[in-house]
Amino acid sequence: KVNGDRLWDSIMEMARIGPGVAGGNNRQTLTDADKVGRELFQRWCDEAGLEMGVDKMGTMFARREGTDPGALPVYVGSHLDTQPTGGKYDGVLGVLGGLELIRTLNDLDIKTKHPIVVTNWTNEEGTRFAPAMLASGVFAGVHELDWAYDRVDAKGLKFGDELKRIGWVGDEEVGTRKMKAFFELHIEQGPILEAEGKDIGVVTHGQGLWWLQVTLTGKDAHTGSTPMPMRRNAGLGMARMTELVHQIAMSHQPEAVGAIGHCDVYPNSRNVIPGKVVFTIDFRTPHQEVLDAMKARFETEAPKIAEELGLGMEIEVAGHFDPVTFDEGCVTAVRNAAERLGYSHRDIVSGAGHDACWINKLYPTAMVMCPCVDGLSHNEAEDISKEWATAGADVLLHAVVETAEI
Amino acid sequence: KVNGDRLWDSIMEMARIGPGVAGGNNRQTLTDADKVGRELFQRWCDEAGLEMGVDKMGTMFARREGTDPGALPVYVGSHLDTQPTGGKYDGVLGVLGGLELIRTLNDLDIKTKHPIVVTNWTNEEGTRFAPAMLASGVFAGVHELDWAYDRVDAKGLKFGDELKRIGWVGDEEVGTRKMKAFFELHIEQGPILEAEGKDIGVVTHGQGLWWLQVTLTGKDAHTGSTPMPMRRNAGLGMARMTELVHQIAMSHQPEAVGAIGHCDVYPNSRNVIPGKVVFTIDFRTPHQEVLDAMKARFETEAPKIAEELGLGMEIEVAGHFDPVTFDEGCVTAVRNAAERLGYSHRDIVSGAGHDACWINKLYPTAMVMCPCVDGLSHNEAEDISKEWATAGADVLLHAVVETAEI
Ligand SMILES: NC(=O)NCCC(=O)O
Ligand SMILES: NC(=O)NCCC(=O)O
Repeated sequence: KVNGDRLWDSIMEMARIGPGVAGGNNRQTLTDADKVGRELFQRWCDEAGLEMGVDKMGTMFARREGTDPGALPVYVGSHLDTQPTGGKYDGVLGVLGGLELIRTLNDLDIKTKHPIVVTNWTNEEGTRFAPAMLASGVFAGVHELDWAYDRVDAKGLKFGDELKRIGWVGDEEVGTRKMKAFFELHIEQGPILEAEGKDIGVVTHGQGLWWLQVTLTGKDAHTGSTPMPMRRNAGLGMARMTELVHQIAMSHQPEAVGAIGHCDVYPNSRNVIPGKVVFTIDFRTPHQEVLDAMKARFETEAPKIAEELGLGMEIEVAGHFDPVTFDEGCVTAVRNAAERLGYSHRDIVSGAGHDACWINKLYPTAMVMCPCVDGLSHNEAEDISKEWATAGADVLLHAVVETAEI
Repeated sequence: KVNGDRLWDSIMEMARIGPGVAGGNNRQTLTDADKVGRELFQRWCDEAGLEMGVDKMGTMFARREGTDPGALPVYVGSHLDTQPTGGKYDGVLGVLGGLELIRTLNDLDIKTKHPIVVTNWTNEEGTRFAPAMLASGVFAGVHELDWAYDRVDAKGLKFGDELKRIGWVGDEEVGTRKMKAFFELHIEQGPILEAEGKDIGVVTHGQGLWWLQVTLTGKDAHTGSTPMPMRRNAGLGMARMTELVHQIAMSHQPEAVGAIGHCDVYPNSRNVIPGKVVFTIDFRTPHQEVLDAMKARFETEAPKIAEELGLGMEIEVAGHFDPVTFDEGCVTAVRNAAERLGYSHRDIVSGAGHDACWINKLYPTAMVMCPCVDGLSHNEAEDISKEWATAGADVLLHAVVETAEI
């Protein structure tokens, strides 16, 4: 079993870097805080005797040698970047849970046949630079490296330039590593495990997603002196599309969600009718046909709203992945580990996207989930107990060791 | 008659300060650009032999002496600050039209009995610091000076600090000046004069306004993994209230308008359900009972929307004025001037708020309007012709000279 206190202390130490405003974290990808977080993780990996490799997307790979160095390594990990108002555990638990697993093997002087590599994937969150899971997506061949470098944040800064600025462009080509398997431990970010009192979620599937970035173009004009019939109010268009997105999601209950989290209004002045809005829709469901139907319905009905209001409309895909089915062997290893350790568990579908979803395209992959309080995530108040974190890391340890072979 | 070319050249010279991104201006109040604009106006006033006074709100008063220095001065003017994506004429025409009137009197060596004062009111637009017409509002005793100093912009900077920073805190107490009358020349910012082919609008009334700043508080949570029934989506609440505001305005056609121009979404991340939104409603109409009914209906129906979505709601008044009836004597002076000069004209209601609306509370006041292309304002493409500007300044000249007595 892992050392839960040590794991917890490391999580709390990482949480001191890039503090939020309400007890959580703002350690967005490729910021100065991200750089400091990476340095701390690097130091811990050095202390644990791991060898660090960094690829051209800045992803960190910390390797513990196996007794058969030629055998394919088993990978674990997640991400250290956070939302702008994020929690202390989303991503961090998976990286530091992986590190704890190594520390435990070191303590017990257990050697595995296959090397084990702990990974910190760059830009999982996708808030500063869309799409999410960017580095694992390049690793999986879903995106081109140059395309990833060209992603811009809200200030117009490029991913490639910011990665260089913080000094974490590695020299490894992205995606050249081969894996025996990949395991990711993550908090559920939903309410099911806590509600059912389960210690462990055995993740069998992941929801698919469409992020559609919509730009509506009207005409900015005076809010007081422009008669109602002369208006081309992009803000009103956004309002009606927000309702449409909600209705589309509601028509596929309980197995679909939809919302708009990102809205920019121009010029955003009290006495100017919005002449332009840019917003991003997030549609998700575990069912391929529902996923495509949601997008199709939006693409059919939204242009009618735009036309009625005299607005120009452009839709751009800001992120996409299909529903995921994880590897049966890896899923079984996770389920068996939970069973063996006596943790209560259930199969579960991941509501969020994870680096594991992309890696599953290439190599046998599975995820371990632990509960989080009220299902709350992407919120500074995100919370888990030390016991939940420890159970998750224990299951990760056992699944990985079984796969890496003693 | 005024020198239209000289007026136009001055407008174009002012427009070089704080250029926008699309041919208009971004010379928001108390920015560095505002400071440079003030310095240019000051230089022009010096050259015209005027004596400058500045009050504690930073409002500039440039005085041309009368033959009876003890007689109450006739005031003219408007504002030099602009919207973030504003036009070259909104406000500027009224200030530089006033200056052109002085230059013309100087050229013709005409003395008036009453002094004439050209005014540049601080923060008319109200975009950076709500409410609009802030300095004239303090002058009219509607707001306290300290309250005005405490207004904050979106970055948290205070009006009082920014006024100090640009070096334009004057030593005059605000509102101590007495006026014989106040005349403001302004572009219509609406489509009526152009559509009817009129040169001049004789402004008899101004619309009343409510600016209601609404804060909705939900819970920021993951857009992918939070089930629909568990959401408290503040963005959805804003969308429904945007529609409500639109419906309220539409139910009082054609004599009311309503829209939301300012929206801030928190944390504004693609994969976070908005936990908080702040937005400002703008309701206007020339009819007192309609104005109050619009506000009342919003205050009755919006809380139901909030409750249904599990949102907290706060409403704060960010700006307010009642419908205005301008002074009959001043209005007649404007109408007579247009008639005498042979300009086509009609009586008109101002759709926008103006400093003249506040000054009308204290002293006889009226406004002169000239057409603008497509009724477009609060847009960088705002446009007028040199002929329109000249006609407006001519009418201003004649109305002011009649009032100031030769
Ligand atoms: N786990 C997580 O929050 N990932 C970010 C990508 C997503 O929105 O699902
Ligand atoms: N004239 C003008 O645009 N004033 C700003 C205040 C308002 O929104 O009416």
